[in-house]
Amino acid sequence: MKVQLKLDSGMRLIGTNSANLETYFDASIKGGGAGSAATPMEILVESMAACSMIDVLSILRKKRKEITDLKIEIDAERADTHPMVFTKVHLKFLLTSPDAEIGDLNRAIELSQTTYCGASAMFQRSGCEVTWSSEIIK
Amino acid sequence: MKVQLKLDSGMRLIGTNSANLETYFDASIKGGGAGSAATPMEILVESMAACSMIDVLSILRKKRKEITDLKIEIDAERADTHPMVFTKVHLKFLLTSPDAEIGDLNRAIELSQTTYCGASAMFQRSGCEVTWSSEIIK
Repeated sequence: MKVQLKLDSGMRLIGTNSANLETYFDASIKGGGAGSAATPMEILVESMAACSMIDVLSILRKKRKEITDLKIEIDAERADTHPMVFTKVHLKFLLTSPDAEIGDLNRAIELSQTTYCGASAMFQRSGCEVTWSSEIIK
Repeated sequence: MKVQLKLDSGMRLIGTNSANLETYFDASIKGGGAGSAATPMEILVESMAACSMIDVLSILRKKRKEITDLKIEIDAERADTHPMVFTKVHLKFLLTSPDAEIGDLNRAIELSQTTYCGASAMFQRSGCEVTWSSEIIK
């Protein structure tokens, strides 16, 4: 995989994949940036959740479950000292579906978190504690 | 840190930080998405490079070096089997500056990669080999 990152201005950065699809990063105002986009560490943990959500969507859709809405609330803690790695990440999955049961959702998350999701595996292997919970909204 | 991820449609996802700044993810067409945004794994590795680039910008600017342009070309390899973690990432830093020397750039990258960059530390601790090279364009 080849991707690129370039300085826009200040601390604002533009990531580009091989199809020229752009992703924006900025430091927070406190961190010396303009706060024009989310920070690299915010986007790092969002990417991990996104990797897992795509697994969960695929698995539920293969089971022909209807997905009205799916959200993950992410609560992440970082080390106090440099390098400020993530030490704990909790993912709360909230699925709105007329026909999926909590067992369907839990099996999909479990499969993603233990087998498919490369980003979550990397977080776990780095020493970060990744936990999850789930809820179905009918 | 609290961030959120929600399904837009198909496999397109929207990440939101606490300031409501949005980041877009999608699966590739091959991966069952619409390819409307970069993939979670592409953005994961871009985030790592972004974390390091912000360190490098901060360090060089503290040394009062003028930064005309800064790019990172990222070459990443993943495992062949699930979970398809990153196994090797090479970051090639390309700095355009009238006054920074290669030693200034290398010290900044070294400091980021060994001390400051939480995302790179997580990649390294997960077992991924992270290497870098650098070039100055006058």
